[in-house]
Amino acid sequence: MLYSKLFGKTKKDSKKYDSANATYLQKGGFIDQVMAGTYTYLTLGLRVLNKIEQIIREEMDTIGQEVLMPALTPIGNWQKTGRFETVDILMKATPANIFAKAKNDTEYVLNPTHEEIVTPLAQRFVLSYKDFPFALYQIQNKFRNEPRVKSGLLRGREFRMKDLYSFHTSETNLKEYYEKSKEVYLRVFKRLGIGKDTVISLASGGSFTDDYSHEFQTLCETGEDTLYYDKSSNIYFNKEVAPSKAPNVNYKDEGMLPRKDVEGKGIIGVGELAEFLNIPVEKTTKTLIFETDDNRVIVAAVRGGYDINEDKLRKVAKCKALKLASATTVKKVTGAEVGYAGILNLPKDIEIFLDESIDNRLNFETGANKTHFHSTNINFGRDLPKPSKFYDIKVAKAGDLDPKTGVEYQVFKASEVGNIFPLYTKFTEAFNYRFIDRDGKEKPIYMGCYGIGPSRIMGIIVEKFHDEKGIIWPSSVSPFGVHLIGLDLRDESIKSKVGQVYKVLKENNVEVLFDDREETTAGNKFADADLIGIPVRLVISKRTGDKIEYKQRKESKSELLSIDQLLLKIKSLKIQ
Amino acid sequence: MLYSKLFGKTKKDSKKYDSANATYLQKGGFIDQVMAGTYTYLTLGLRVLNKIEQIIREEMDTIGQEVLMPALTPIGNWQKTGRFETVDILMKATPANIFAKAKNDTEYVLNPTHEEIVTPLAQRFVLSYKDFPFALYQIQNKFRNEPRVKSGLLRGREFRMKDLYSFHTSETNLKEYYEKSKEVYLRVFKRLGIGKDTVISLASGGSFTDDYSHEFQTLCETGEDTLYYDKSSNIYFNKEVAPSKAPNVNYKDEGMLPRKDVEGKGIIGVGELAEFLNIPVEKTTKTLIFETDDNRVIVAAVRGGYDINEDKLRKVAKCKALKLASATTVKKVTGAEVGYAGILNLPKDIEIFLDESIDNRLNFETGANKTHFHSTNINFGRDLPKPSKFYDIKVAKAGDLDPKTGVEYQVFKASEVGNIFPLYTKFTEAFNYRFIDRDGKEKPIYMGCYGIGPSRIMGIIVEKFHDEKGIIWPSSVSPFGVHLIGLDLRDESIKSKVGQVYKVLKENNVEVLFDDREETTAGNKFADADLIGIPVRLVISKRTGDKIEYKQRKESKSELLSIDQLLLKIKSLKIQ
Repeated sequence: MLYSKLFGKTKKDSKKYDSANATYLQKGGFIDQVMAGTYTYLTLGLRVLNKIEQIIREEMDTIGQEVLMPALTPIGNWQKTGRFETVDILMKATPANIFAKAKNDTEYVLNPTHEEIVTPLAQRFVLSYKDFPFALYQIQNKFRNEPRVKSGLLRGREFRMKDLYSFHTSETNLKEYYEKSKEVYLRVFKRLGIGKDTVISLASGGSFTDDYSHEFQTLCETGEDTLYYDKSSNIYFNKEVAPSKAPNVNYKDEGMLPRKDVEGKGIIGVGELAEFLNIPVEKTTKTLIFETDDNRVIVAAVRGGYDINEDKLRKVAKCKALKLASATTVKKVTGAEVGYAGILNLPKDIEIFLDESIDNRLNFETGANKTHFHSTNINFGRDLPKPSKFYDIKVAKAGDLDPKTGVEYQVFKASEVGNIFPLYTKFTEAFNYRFIDRDGKEKPIYMGCYGIGPSRIMGIIVEKFHDEKGIIWPSSVSPFGVHLIGLDLRDESIKSKVGQVYKVLKENNVEVLFDDREETTAGNKFADADLIGIPVRLVISKRTGDKIEYKQRKESKSELLSIDQLLLKIKSLKIQ
Repeated sequence: MLYSKLFGKTKKDSKKYDSANATYLQKGGFIDQVMAGTYTYLTLGLRVLNKIEQIIREEMDTIGQEVLMPALTPIGNWQKTGRFETVDILMKATPANIFAKAKNDTEYVLNPTHEEIVTPLAQRFVLSYKDFPFALYQIQNKFRNEPRVKSGLLRGREFRMKDLYSFHTSETNLKEYYEKSKEVYLRVFKRLGIGKDTVISLASGGSFTDDYSHEFQTLCETGEDTLYYDKSSNIYFNKEVAPSKAPNVNYKDEGMLPRKDVEGKGIIGVGELAEFLNIPVEKTTKTLIFETDDNRVIVAAVRGGYDINEDKLRKVAKCKALKLASATTVKKVTGAEVGYAGILNLPKDIEIFLDESIDNRLNFETGANKTHFHSTNINFGRDLPKPSKFYDIKVAKAGDLDPKTGVEYQVFKASEVGNIFPLYTKFTEAFNYRFIDRDGKEKPIYMGCYGIGPSRIMGIIVEKFHDEKGIIWPSSVSPFGVHLIGLDLRDESIKSKVGQVYKVLKENNVEVLFDDREETTAGNKFADADLIGIPVRLVISKRTGDKIEYKQRKESKSELLSIDQLLLKIKSLKIQ
C-alpha cells in the first residue's frame, strides 16, 4: 500500500493522552476517537484488529463453531435471568425522537454479553445427549454503559469481543472442556506475541459460584490489575481474591500494659489515629458494621493498614449481599456514633468476624464503642476473650503471605487479556434448558463462558511493546510485514528502483507499506516508521547503491542486502 | 465439515414464514430468529454472509479504504445536521435500569447510517486539495427503528451494511467517481451471481437534491419494488419517481352533454362513484387539497384510477413538505365538506395543479365543491377554462407511457440490492468541512454515499434462486463447494471409501459439507441437501461401486465419476 494514499496518517500534535496505547495508536493513525470510549479503526488499525481476530478465530475453530448473534435483542430474555433490572453496565435502545416513537415505541437490550441469547438459541436446536458437548462463539461489537472510560482501547463503551459458550451434560465434562480451553487460550496469546508474559490467575467467580474463574493476565508495568504470585505453588491470584496472611508484627516484648480509654474526637483513618496515639499503624484496628441481604447485622475487623474484602467477608458470613450499616444501626450495636466502633463489649447476639491479622498482637488499639473514644493496650485473654477462630477477610497487600504455603507473595502489575467462567447451571436453569439423556430423562445442562477482547488486546500489545519512539508490533499482528521507505525520490533512477522492489515484494506475497512521499524529509519518514512500528524497515536511497538497507524495528543496527538476500531474510522471519 | 457436528441442522417443522428466504434460510439452518427483525447467523449462514462480504470488500478496495466506525456515537453529531430530532428510524442507547442510570446517565445515538460520523472523521485528517478525492467504507451492523419488519433478511432492525463515502473537490469529480462506482457495483452483483438480472434504476434523491439517486435492482417476482422500463431509452425508473403519461381514453364521440349536478352523499372512492354515476372510472376526477410548509393551500387533481405522487407534486409546487389540508381549510377553499372537492369554481388565489391525465376527456366528472354533490358532463372550454399547463403529479401505473418517448412502460417487480446517492455539500456544509485549494482558498467539498446490504442480499439471492425443495446457491456464495453424502455407512468399506473421498477433496482445497450421519435415511439426506442448496451433490453408497455419483443442485440428471474425473469437473466449475 502507498503511504501517500493512506487515510489516517501520523499526527504531529503534542496532545497528551492517558496511556501509551492511546498515544501511539492515535498519533500513528491506527484509531480515531469518536467520543470517550468509542473509536474508529482506521485502515492501519483495522488491519491489526483483523489479524488479531483471525488468530483468535483459527484457534476457537478447534473447540467451537462460529455464529453471529445480534446486539439488539428483546428485553424479555434479560428479565428471565433477573439481570435486566440489576446489571449496571446494561444499555437499552429506545426511539430517538417523537417521530421515531410514533413509528415504533419498543425498547430493546443492547447486549454487553450473550448468555441470555445463546442459551435459548442452543435450546432451540440441541436437546439430545448425542449432540453434547458443543460450543458456539462469535466475534462482535459489545456495548457497556461504562462511567469512566480511559486508557485508549483498554476500556470502552463499544468494543470488540470474542465470546464462546460451551454446553455439557455433566460437571465433569464441563471441567474437562474448561481445562482444554486454557490450552487453546495460551496458544492464542503465544501467536499474538504475548505468550511469554501471559499467565493464568485465579479470579472471582462472580455471583454464579464460589469457585474461582480464571483470568489470562499479561504482565505489564502499566497494567490495571495486581497479581499475587506464590512461587512455591506457582499460583497467581488476582488481588481481588488472593488469600492472605499478614506478616507478623515484631515489637520488643513490652508485656501487657494497662488498658486506657483515650478521647480522640473526629480522628479520621488509622494513619491519623496511630500518629495521635503514637503507636504503629499495625497496632490499630479497623472495625466495620455491615447489614446482610438476610437481615443480619455483622461486625468485621482487620488490622490497621488493611481493607476489608467484602467478597471474602460475604463468603465467610454466608450471605449474598452486604452493605455498610446505617448510622442508626451502628449506634444500636455499638452504643456509639459512627467512627468509634471496636471489638470490645459488643452485644452477645452479634456475629463477629475477625481477620487473622488481628491476632498475635500485644497492646493493640480498638474503637471503644463509646463516642469519641478509643481503647488502647487491649489484649486477648485479658480485655476480651480470644476468639476460637480467625478469618481471612482482608484485601491482600504487598508483603502478605500465601496462607497455604506461608511463602511471601511476589506482586506484579498485569492487564487482563481473557477471562473464562464455569457458569454451571445458572443460565440453563433460568431458561429451563435441560437435555434428554440416554435413559429418556431430562437432566441439567452445564455451561461455561470464555471471553477475549480483540480491541483491548490491541491496546495491551502496544502497552507491552513500545519505546519512546513508538510501537514495536509482534510480526503476527503488524499491519504490514515491511515498511519500505524511498528517499531521494525525485531522482528517477531511485524512484524506479524502489518501485521495482515494491513490486517484487508484493509478488512474493509480502505485505508492504511503501512510503512513496516525495516531499517528506528522511527524518520525518524514519520517525513515522518508528511510530507505526512495523517490524522490518527497508530504505532505498542514493546512498544504498544497488542494495537495500534492512533494519528491524526492535534493533538499532542495519545492514545492506541484495533483493535475493532480503527475500530469504524475510522468509526466515516468517514475515508476510 | 461434518454435518453430524454442525450446529443448526435443518428443521422439519411445518411453520409458515412470510417469504421464501425466511422459510428456506430458517428451515435450512442458516439463520435463527431472535425477534422480529434480528437474526443469529448460524454456522452455515455466517459462511454465506462472509463470502458475500468478502466479494464486496474486494471490489470496494478498488475504489476506497476500509475503516470501522463505532455504532454508538454522540448525539451532538446528529444534532448538527438536524437529523436527531427528525429521522424516524433513529434509535438511541440509554441506561437500561436505575443502577445503570446511577452509573452513567448519558444517551448516545445508535447509527443507522454514518454520514454524521464519517464527515467529521474525514475533516480531522484531510484538508488539502492534494489528498482528494478519497473514499472510506466499512462493513458493519446498522440499527433501524423499523415498525414493520418482514420478509426474513430483507428488512431488519439490525442488519449488515457496507457503506462507502466519497469526498471530492468538485461536482465534476464527484460525478466521475459516481459513474465509476456504478461499474464497481455491477461487478459485485455479477460475482454474487445476480448480475444478469440486476439493473440500475433511477430513484428519489431524498431531501438532499432534486437529482435522482440510483438503485441497483434485482428483477425478482417477489420483489417489493416496481420498476418502469422504457425499452426505447433503456431506462428503468423506480415507481416512486417514474415520469408518466396516462394512455388516452377512447370513447365513442358522444359530443358535449349538458352539465348535471348529481347528489351522491357519502360515496367513497372513484370506483364506487363511477358505478353510482354509471360512467367509466376514467371519467371521474380525484381532487385533493394540500397545505405546504410555506403556508400555501394548493389543489391537485388526477384522473380517477390514479393516485397523487406527493414527491412529484412537491417539486412542481416548489415546496419542501406537504400535508393533506384540514377539514376546516377544505371547507374554506371549496365551500363543501371533505369528499366533494373538485376543480370547478375554486377561489382565484388558489394554485391548481392538474395532472395531464385530466386532459383529453369529454364529459368528465368532478366534485361539485358543494356538500354531497358531484358535477358530471364537465368539459374544458365550456364549464371551466382549459389550463395553459398540465403537470405530471401522479403515481405511475401499468399501461402508462414514458412522456419523453411516448413508449408504453414494461413493468417489473424487483428487489433493491444497492443504492448510491450524490450528497453534494449537504453534510460537509453542516460540519463546515471545506478544503484548501491550490490557491490557498477554502472551497466546498462534494460528497457521495454508496450502500449495499450484505444480509439483505443473502435474502434476495434466496428469493431469486430457489425451487420447491429449497435453495440453489450461486457457487460464489455457497456455504460449501460440495455436499458429500455417505449412504450405507454401517458398511465399513463404504464408510472408509467416503472418508477417503472427503479427505482427498479437502486436500484439494474443496470446501466440503460431509453428511456423515449413520442413522438418517437416504431420503432425508437428499431432502436436506436440496434444502441447503450447495451447488454440487456427491453420493457414495453400495450402489456407486468405485465411482462417485455427481449431481448439480440445479439439474436433475446425475453421473458416475472416478475421483480424478470429479476433481477435474470441480476445477472446471471453479468451485471451492
